[in-house]
Amino acid sequence: MEYRIEKDTMGEVKVPAEKYWGAQTERSRNNFKIGPSASMPLEIVYGFAYLKKAAAHANFDLGVLTEEKRNLISKVCDEILEGKLDDQFPLVIWQTGSGTQSNMNVNEVIANRAHEIAGKKIGEGEKTIQPNDDVNKSQSSNDTFPTGMHIACYKMIVETTIPGIEQLRDTLDKKAKDFSDVVKIGRTHLMDATPLTVGQEISGYVSQLDHGLKALKNTLAHLSELALGGTAVGTGLNTPKGYDVLVAKKIAEFTELPFITAENKFEALAAHDALVESHGALKQLAVSLNKIANDIRLMASGPRSGIGELIIPANEPGSSIMPGKVNPTQAEALTMVCAQVIGNDVAVTVGGMQGNYELNVFKPVMASNVLQSARLLGDACASFDENCAKGIEPNRPRIKELVDNSLMLVTALNTKIGYYKAAEIANTAHKNGTTLKEEAVRLGYVTPEQYDEWVKPEEMTSGL
Amino acid sequence: MEYRIEKDTMGEVKVPAEKYWGAQTERSRNNFKIGPSASMPLEIVYGFAYLKKAAAHANFDLGVLTEEKRNLISKVCDEILEGKLDDQFPLVIWQTGSGTQSNMNVNEVIANRAHEIAGKKIGEGEKTIQPNDDVNKSQSSNDTFPTGMHIACYKMIVETTIPGIEQLRDTLDKKAKDFSDVVKIGRTHLMDATPLTVGQEISGYVSQLDHGLKALKNTLAHLSELALGGTAVGTGLNTPKGYDVLVAKKIAEFTELPFITAENKFEALAAHDALVESHGALKQLAVSLNKIANDIRLMASGPRSGIGELIIPANEPGSSIMPGKVNPTQAEALTMVCAQVIGNDVAVTVGGMQGNYELNVFKPVMASNVLQSARLLGDACASFDENCAKGIEPNRPRIKELVDNSLMLVTALNTKIGYYKAAEIANTAHKNGTTLKEEAVRLGYVTPEQYDEWVKPEEMTSGL
Amino acid sequence: MEYRIEKDTMGEVKVPAEKYWGAQTERSRNNFKIGPSASMPLEIVYGFAYLKKAAAHANFDLGVLTEEKRNLISKVCDEILEGKLDDQFPLVIWQTGSGTQSNMNVNEVIANRAHEIAGKKIGEGEKTIQPNDDVNKSQSSNDTFPTGMHIACYKMIVETTIPGIEQLRDTLDKKAKDFSDVVKIGRTHLMDATPLTVGQEISGYVSQLDHGLKALKNTLAHLSELALGGTAVGTGLNTPKGYDVLVAKKIAEFTELPFITAENKFEALAAHDALVESHGALKQLAVSLNKIANDIRLMASGPRSGIGELIIPANEPGSSIMPGKVNPTQAEALTMVCAQVIGNDVAVTVGGMQGNYELNVFKPVMASNVLQSARLLGDACASFDENCAKGIEPNRPRIKELVDNSLMLVTALNTKIGYYKAAEIANTAHKNGTTLKEEAVRLGYVTPEQYDEWVKPEEMTSGL
Amino acid sequence: MEYRIEKDTMGEVKVPAEKYWGAQTERSRNNFKIGPSASMPLEIVYGFAYLKKAAAHANFDLGVLTEEKRNLISKVCDEILEGKLDDQFPLVIWQTGSGTQSNMNVNEVIANRAHEIAGKKIGEGEKTIQPNDDVNKSQSSNDTFPTGMHIACYKMIVETTIPGIEQLRDTLDKKAKDFSDVVKIGRTHLMDATPLTVGQEISGYVSQLDHGLKALKNTLAHLSELALGGTAVGTGLNTPKGYDVLVAKKIAEFTELPFITAENKFEALAAHDALVESHGALKQLAVSLNKIANDIRLMASGPRSGIGELIIPANEPGSSIMPGKVNPTQAEALTMVCAQVIGNDVAVTVGGMQGNYELNVFKPVMASNVLQSARLLGDACASFDENCAKGIEPNRPRIKELVDNSLMLVTALNTKIGYYKAAEIANTAHKNGTTLKEEAVRLGYVTPEQYDEWVKPEEMTSGL
Repeated sequence: MEYRIEKDTMGEVKVPAEKYWGAQTERSRNNFKIGPSASMPLEIVYGFAYLKKAAAHANFDLGVLTEEKRNLISKVCDEILEGKLDDQFPLVIWQTGSGTQSNMNVNEVIANRAHEIAGKKIGEGEKTIQPNDDVNKSQSSNDTFPTGMHIACYKMIVETTIPGIEQLRDTLDKKAKDFSDVVKIGRTHLMDATPLTVGQEISGYVSQLDHGLKALKNTLAHLSELALGGTAVGTGLNTPKGYDVLVAKKIAEFTELPFITAENKFEALAAHDALVESHGALKQLAVSLNKIANDIRLMASGPRSGIGELIIPANEPGSSIMPGKVNPTQAEALTMVCAQVIGNDVAVTVGGMQGNYELNVFKPVMASNVLQSARLLGDACASFDENCAKGIEPNRPRIKELVDNSLMLVTALNTKIGYYKAAEIANTAHKNGTTLKEEAVRLGYVTPEQYDEWVKPEEMTSGL
Repeated sequence: MEYRIEKDTMGEVKVPAEKYWGAQTERSRNNFKIGPSASMPLEIVYGFAYLKKAAAHANFDLGVLTEEKRNLISKVCDEILEGKLDDQFPLVIWQTGSGTQSNMNVNEVIANRAHEIAGKKIGEGEKTIQPNDDVNKSQSSNDTFPTGMHIACYKMIVETTIPGIEQLRDTLDKKAKDFSDVVKIGRTHLMDATPLTVGQEISGYVSQLDHGLKALKNTLAHLSELALGGTAVGTGLNTPKGYDVLVAKKIAEFTELPFITAENKFEALAAHDALVESHGALKQLAVSLNKIANDIRLMASGPRSGIGELIIPANEPGSSIMPGKVNPTQAEALTMVCAQVIGNDVAVTVGGMQGNYELNVFKPVMASNVLQSARLLGDACASFDENCAKGIEPNRPRIKELVDNSLMLVTALNTKIGYYKAAEIANTAHKNGTTLKEEAVRLGYVTPEQYDEWVKPEEMTSGL
Repeated sequence: MEYRIEKDTMGEVKVPAEKYWGAQTERSRNNFKIGPSASMPLEIVYGFAYLKKAAAHANFDLGVLTEEKRNLISKVCDEILEGKLDDQFPLVIWQTGSGTQSNMNVNEVIANRAHEIAGKKIGEGEKTIQPNDDVNKSQSSNDTFPTGMHIACYKMIVETTIPGIEQLRDTLDKKAKDFSDVVKIGRTHLMDATPLTVGQEISGYVSQLDHGLKALKNTLAHLSELALGGTAVGTGLNTPKGYDVLVAKKIAEFTELPFITAENKFEALAAHDALVESHGALKQLAVSLNKIANDIRLMASGPRSGIGELIIPANEPGSSIMPGKVNPTQAEALTMVCAQVIGNDVAVTVGGMQGNYELNVFKPVMASNVLQSARLLGDACASFDENCAKGIEPNRPRIKELVDNSLMLVTALNTKIGYYKAAEIANTAHKNGTTLKEEAVRLGYVTPEQYDEWVKPEEMTSGL
Repeated sequence: MEYRIEKDTMGEVKVPAEKYWGAQTERSRNNFKIGPSASMPLEIVYGFAYLKKAAAHANFDLGVLTEEKRNLISKVCDEILEGKLDDQFPLVIWQTGSGTQSNMNVNEVIANRAHEIAGKKIGEGEKTIQPNDDVNKSQSSNDTFPTGMHIACYKMIVETTIPGIEQLRDTLDKKAKDFSDVVKIGRTHLMDATPLTVGQEISGYVSQLDHGLKALKNTLAHLSELALGGTAVGTGLNTPKGYDVLVAKKIAEFTELPFITAENKFEALAAHDALVESHGALKQLAVSLNKIANDIRLMASGPRSGIGELIIPANEPGSSIMPGKVNPTQAEALTMVCAQVIGNDVAVTVGGMQGNYELNVFKPVMASNVLQSARLLGDACASFDENCAKGIEPNRPRIKELVDNSLMLVTALNTKIGYYKAAEIANTAHKNGTTLKEEAVRLGYVTPEQYDEWVKPEEMTSGL
């Protein structure tokens, strides 16, 4: 492989000749051979591109950067955002906990690519723009990395997570309305209980997702606060007056998202409770989705020896050995995602709790877990929606058979003959394998006419 | 021990003669010998007392309960709330997951105590009021237990957690203002960094708690939703018209808290995402408090071989073997509480994700973890505040010594001579064990006068 | 309340006159009002009693304590172990993270009670034995608390956890043998699959518990290592030669358990990986038990609209509103315990990861979580065994009905006619609601005779 | 893109013409667009290659597969293991929870590539070997996927995790010996305590890793058990006699690792406690490593305002804004890995606890988390070792300065003058800012000569 020489304050480093990155990126590549390469999420790189461009604009507006440099920096940032430089970011999550090396990776790539755009050859002559003094002007890794990760996480949540969940929620809401007349047996403790409609049951799922989406949206305010302008320790050292507010405004403009400057920059560097907060809501949604997916696969179980109340789409042959088998695979993928998100929540928590003094140095691990959870939940909900939820149909004959046999219809008699006599009827019918009506009449507590008038499953799906 | 005979639908049970509880409580006592007895939190019992009273009032208002019965039930509920019957609730958390047995415990105690108030002898004659048909009227365990646990958790959070955290927050806020002029060295990656004031540093903690309190308060809306009126499976079977709204109104009135009826009763029985949501915020606060307590004990470390920048109160002899030792014990208690809360979050999550069909049967474990976390956080913050935070003082000579020696003051030169030359100065001073000024001048990058003008720690605590 | 004055190195403290504890205990009571009082587990106090007695004996044997003092200390330790002094230990878990105050609580109670045994009056005259110089001789909180917690956890695991789990394991093993001839439908992905016997299914649970018990026992070696003899920082400062080995021998003798002195005392003070290790195995068992309990309640679900393959004991009325309902309550209690244990694992982990330098100061929270998990698992398994597992019976007619209808019996034809044709048979039967045999013959792939010879559920429960 | 038509039991599917995979792989690609493509770890694919080859050999040996087919299958498996077909496995973790689709992916690739090796053209003519009937002979996804994941995890642990940790352990052990004479101040509660040697301190880390490695190795027995031979539900349906033992023997031979057939195949399919068990040990190691890395970075903190007792290698410029800054980046990478592993442990737990009946359908998420943790821990330890641990040196002058000033040297006087007088000396010296000796003599408790004889830091690093 061809190399060129790059320098930083520690000396010279050999760098692959065709790459834009510089000495510090290369040092990191060599010093952190942990897991697969390039594991630092590209979404964070793109977050950096937004902020580097915004910083160049703010620096120019505030008179500390030339127009030419602003334009060069902006141009490279746009290339990054177009995905043209994706292979220039080889670093891993498992580097310095401030993400300094990824910040420098971006600074170096911008500086070298700008040199090229300015008509020069990388590695030759004085750099047209300097990675530290120009690209990183009025910045520190300590405020850029958290800014980049907030941008990345916010975008992922509003562009992937929320739309994916809302799509599923809307389908379930439609199903709740479509099946509002299908009376089925309820189950509590997994045991037969009083009836409700399929629509009512599904409306509970919708309510879970509505509450979860509200909880997730509640966290966005904290996530919209950007650390940029705090520089090294939160004081804003080496930033021009008004820079923090202005640079956040530029980021809001470029991303078209409501980012603002963090009220307290010390918090914004030293703690990442905003990520903990947002991930807490993602975890809550995982809890909800696990329940929903489990219910659906239990009710779809069978085809002959399970519950069999719901019919779900058959998408793939289910078994390599059992011919003709079909499985609730979308529910499985979704619940596996839930397990991952629940685990990720602990990783984010463990990272968040360990900040020291002016800096939390668990930034990359926290951000990458939030991004993974946000992406997986959104994708998995969309997949579950399209390949399962949309196709759910009630198995009406089966549903009717089960509700008609249920001993818990006896509950309707509570207000007529009291809980104790009602229990006697149910217990006797259970023991004898008979129907409630038979025993109710035989025990002399009701007449057949009263039974038929009082015990109507379809009237048991609401209050008196 | 003396016994009397009580009955339920399964038959007769011997119950300690002097206790108010009945057959089902006694069955549970015998069938669930798991961990210490009476572990079911009394706060939940009190939550039940509020709701049983509210139900009696609503049932009377809606014409399905006599005035006499309403009054008797209310009277016993008041006695429970006064703590007079605390020893009548012997059941454990580890019972049926719906909490049915604790609901029946309350029903039985109310019925038997009411019998006594009505001038009769327990165990003799027809019960004046029936546990199921009267005390439990228009209710099911499935809607009462979640109602009781929401009342208990809500009260704990607003009466203990939030006041405890706010008390600490206010003290820290005062300290942030008091020490706003004390310039100290910043530390990132645990390493010397650019300076900031002690006040700025502490303001970051205040901001963490402010964000955490806001997050916690955001969860109260979900927690204020009550399941009562859903009865067995959420349909409201056997409740009179208007009951759910009315009974929530009564509970709000009796507790003086803004409880409302849950919009969707199916969600309110089958999922307890509200607890997951509130505990998520408690966990976030644990993350914040762990960081804050760690910082304080690190900065107070010493007395001679640590950081020594803060002085904290000496409350107890610190060692049974090392004479004269004093330790940051309040920080230790608080961080242990944080560890517990972080663990409890997973217990709540694991309970929340496993609901099936119309009922989540992890109610007691979820509620008891929320209550423990909420109580511990509130208590620990109050304790930390009174026994540590209030007494925090900066060790001004030590702070000044450390900031004056710092090599990172060189950062102020970035905007004057560039990052690379500044790095050369710092590296040389580090290598030679000299001062920045000596090396800056020796290297010919600045004059002594320039150095003194440009490098002023107290001017480095804000932007340009 | 009556008080007396006690002193420590910080000065005088008023202590309740009738209590044996002294100044440091009282300071802790006042400084740590966090959660319910006396939450420090008594098992740890008893662990201390063993070790204080052992230390007194070792100190005497090594010539640094008088026989009289040894005897007095031993006598009080025996009283503690008999439970006579349970109300003398009022401290909470949420104190100093080294447990120093609980160590001093024990030292003070022993000293004052010994004074009384020696015929004197507490609070009068020079103490017959000194809390620090005599009771705590050759000890530090830093090695006594970890020793006490290892003793407590080890005892709980071998006396409660393992017997409880083994009891359940043995019942399941008996059931596996009893039902080895009951052929039932298998289910994978919750969907109908090829058959197996009830005995085979249950044998999987036995294997899980066997592996889990083995894993738990694997951790006992680490837990048997005692820190005692390390004193303040692990060096053994102020201990006589040979003390560490001797004192562990004494503890082994008094507890009749194979305790040994820790090979490396620095690890034994600064890290509590032994607790992390043992709790990891408890968590694994919780994972296993959750699966087992879930299976049993799913298979027992019904009575008419569930799976209904197993019959479990009906122990309590299951509902306060639904007459005659019976629920799998033991499975619910057990799975709630599992949720708690899984949460506790994270609390133990978070405590374990945060030691600093020579001491981990999360000892009380780690130990109390291990003790709770160990107790709850043992108790819950015993309860589940006695009140559920012992009574499990297969519902043979139901089981036969389900297996006979299953489409997955077609798998037996794979080796005869190939996977593709077999799939065609199953898919057609599913679509037409017919039997496999009908379609197999109709499609011309087998003769009726071949079908009957090749497809025998009872022969499908093993290899060829 | 060019396509060809492939078929499965559900019908025809268009597949990219140049790929070896077939219909079921393509269905999965389309139905599970969740997260980045090809996230299923290649290590699992390689695990499959071992087992498919072993199955082909066992099937041939037992007379149910021709020699030609055995050879063709083996040949493709070898190609997979050489990494030649890495781009033929496009599926994601988030598919069916049994991993059926990845099993079929392997079956299809082998079948099509074998067809090609046999001199034919993919998509043309009858397949030379059939994916289900030949490649998957005597197998089910339900026993192959767990076998593949056990092989993958076992290999990763013994080839990456253990060597990485042992490498670090050996370096630390060498350092412990090298610095066995460097007396330093101990710290408990972060506060100054009695002295020990740097070697002693580091020996505690070695002991942690030794215990952790032992715990990890203890789990390998469970992990060495292979499910293969259980087929669909654990009964071994459709396998020739002796197959399970033989195929495990073949796998052991091909991998040169001590795999055996699982004693109980029902457990091996329905539960993955072996993964829970192994990951529990990985988590324990993360707990240990977090402590070790934290200690090292705290002791290396400074350079001028921290603890400064250790010197660690300066590998990269530490800051993009603070010139000359150097940070403990390897410790940061390692502790971030620990946070991830601790989170992954919960994901594995949540997956493990949710098996139902005959199958756990959280296989891919469990296996991928174990693989990630095992890889990251091994890599991070190797990286930490090479780039940090190997270069650790004590800062002797600083260490001496700190130990000499310590007030806790007073502990040596306990056995001479008692704890109370010793405390008085320390407290007075602390208050007055004087030395222990000054105050000890001034208070009249010792002579200067006695002090010098009794208080020798270097003699305080062991017992009497």
